Amino acid sequence: MPEKRYLVTPGPTPVPPEVLAATAAPMIHHRSPDFRGTLERVTERLQRVFRTENDIVHLTSAGTGAMESVFQNLCSPGDPVLVVSHGFFGERFAAQAEVYGCKLTHLRYGWGESPSPDEVGAQLDEIEGVKIVFLTHSDTSTGVVSDIQGIAERISGSDALVVVDAISSLAAVPLETDAWGLDVVITSSHKALMSPPGLAFVSVSEAAFQASRSATSPRYYFDWERARATQEKGENPFSPAISLFLGVDVALGMILEEGLEAAFERHVRLGRAARAGVKAMGLELFSPDEDRSAVVTAIKMPEGIDGGSIVLSMRERSGVTIIGGQGELRGKIVRFGHIGYIDVFDVTTALAALELAMVGAGADIERSAAVTAALEAYAEPVSV
Amino acid sequence: MPEKRYLVTPGPTPVPPEVLAATAAPMIHHRSPDFRGTLERVTERLQRVFRTENDIVHLTSAGTGAMESVFQNLCSPGDPVLVVSHGFFGERFAAQAEVYGCKLTHLRYGWGESPSPDEVGAQLDEIEGVKIVFLTHSDTSTGVVSDIQGIAERISGSDALVVVDAISSLAAVPLETDAWGLDVVITSSHKALMSPPGLAFVSVSEAAFQASRSATSPRYYFDWERARATQEKGENPFSPAISLFLGVDVALGMILEEGLEAAFERHVRLGRAARAGVKAMGLELFSPDEDRSAVVTAIKMPEGIDGGSIVLSMRERSGVTIIGGQGELRGKIVRFGHIGYIDVFDVTTALAALELAMVGAGADIERSAAVTAALEAYAEPVSV
Repeated sequence: MPEKRYLVTPGPTPVPPEVLAATAAPMIHHRSPDFRGTLERVTERLQRVFRTENDIVHLTSAGTGAMESVFQNLCSPGDPVLVVSHGFFGERFAAQAEVYGCKLTHLRYGWGESPSPDEVGAQLDEIEGVKIVFLTHSDTSTGVVSDIQGIAERISGSDALVVVDAISSLAAVPLETDAWGLDVVITSSHKALMSPPGLAFVSVSEAAFQASRSATSPRYYFDWERARATQEKGENPFSPAISLFLGVDVALGMILEEGLEAAFERHVRLGRAARAGVKAMGLELFSPDEDRSAVVTAIKMPEGIDGGSIVLSMRERSGVTIIGGQGELRGKIVRFGHIGYIDVFDVTTALAALELAMVGAGADIERSAAVTAALEAYAEPVSV
Repeated sequence: MPEKRYLVTPGPTPVPPEVLAATAAPMIHHRSPDFRGTLERVTERLQRVFRTENDIVHLTSAGTGAMESVFQNLCSPGDPVLVVSHGFFGERFAAQAEVYGCKLTHLRYGWGESPSPDEVGAQLDEIEGVKIVFLTHSDTSTGVVSDIQGIAERISGSDALVVVDAISSLAAVPLETDAWGLDVVITSSHKALMSPPGLAFVSVSEAAFQASRSATSPRYYFDWERARATQEKGENPFSPAISLFLGVDVALGMILEEGLEAAFERHVRLGRAARAGVKAMGLELFSPDEDRSAVVTAIKMPEGIDGGSIVLSMRERSGVTIIGGQGELRGKIVRFGHIGYIDVFDVTTALAALELAMVGAGADIERSAAVTAALEAYAEPVSV
């Protein structure tokens, strides 16, 4: 038998067979009634998942393209912006701000720290005329899920537009676009929306559309206004990833059928299960040991154990794909993703394979405890 | 039975079942040995299809994103560029040149005209210091396939970089990236590469990479140098459309197994079949009646017949999707695409359904002649 594969990463995430089947349907034309229904249904379903009445712009790109689209549509060179980062992906916003010539203030938290609403507010108060605040909801590089509600509340008196990278958090942990006053929220198809990568979605407030009219950065493919105008006619401005839309449509239907609250609760229990298993094995968590940290569990490697070799050994010995650390955390941590089409047995599979790999690497760990601890933690009811 | 669908458009094009099945495989991680083989094989196969030893940059986007990537990577505001257009898509290059602040000279041919190598050369000779010449190989809005070889030869003495939009032509009609000295050639997945839309590929010469180092337009997601550096390590810089890569890999295998020469010959015969059928029906061609016009056949609507209503009637009555005119040609023409996974019976299906629709619209056409004429034209051998 060819080796069976298990994917326990935060993006791509496993795709349900119903979604895969939908993506393999015979090709249809994107400017035709065959596709229009899908496009309109995806938009309407996304609005329910984003919890917004704002327009949702569709982009055929990775999430990073959607992040860049914010600078293209909202910024002119010299615009003061505040980027709050707490990991690899927040720092990407800062790098993009430099590329687009923004006057960048970078409130840079250490990787693994959670931004404090008061500190963000105080920082914003100090700077003259900030046009945009960039926040990361879940930074998968560390497992930290930040308190967007708290930050948004603290800065709600400011004129700045609030932009949130919810790429790995949307549909996994609670996010209220309208109720929290978030102008721009970004997500992509291959995280908790449990579809293949290739599509990104951006919720854009009227204030943000207004601001885009005076922004001078060059833009064409990622132009939000053009996208909105074309979507209003039931089309996309350029050839969209048609087959991925067919998949996302089915995935969104499944998510809404489960119900967002039920999905949030499941993700809390999955996070608890992963953390309980890791601790029962005698390993230390890098990601916060809190319910909000329901996207990624990051595990510190003991002294002398290289995370990269653990990832490799899990893959080669067990067919289980997890990921190691990025940037400054390379080698020091390994990470499980548990968003989207994930049940507790995916978490226990990852724990069991991790146990094998750690033993193989000569680590001093507790055996036979992790899986049961995870199952027990998962069984505990929660309310979100 | 739900109405059966037939897709006879130049993008998206029909996708072979083997390719669809490949896109529906369980998700794998893009930074893992599971994917690395696919990525490397796709690159190597693309080089054979592009006929180049240059690097091929992968982008998860529509072809328009790849077109914009040329301006981002090669242009600084004020750079003199020459855009040669002969339809909707060539004019898109001109629009993007304006967005990126280039000093644009636009040699604009009428829609349906073919650019003359001598005129392009003379125009280029007249302008001081042109940095880039933008050419469209096949403009699907008109069906014209331009003489890129002739133009490239005529301008080969210039220092300008040569950029070719081969989005709908690559793998359908001959294009020699290296032999013709083309610095940048763009294509996308959903034309003659017979895969779903969502991926674009850009072949980039060393001279173009060199020029990119001094170009100041902002870029991040579409940065070629970052893409090349990451691809050299067997990865993409950002999450690629993994499932579409799995499909393109299979499609490229099928194309190379047929052989590029055989594919070119088949496309010539498909074009001849479409034109023979149209003429036998007593309709006039809008696209040139020449073998090179092997991508799209554009058909003039007789006085009083609206192309849009013919497209609608073909779809509603027969389940056959073709497309109408774009821009200034809206209503005046209809178009068949015959690239990629197309056999002569797709062409005869479109002709038969067109015949029904024209009769339904009260047009005075020749009945019972088109299909046979197409089959006979297809049967004639050709050499390319």
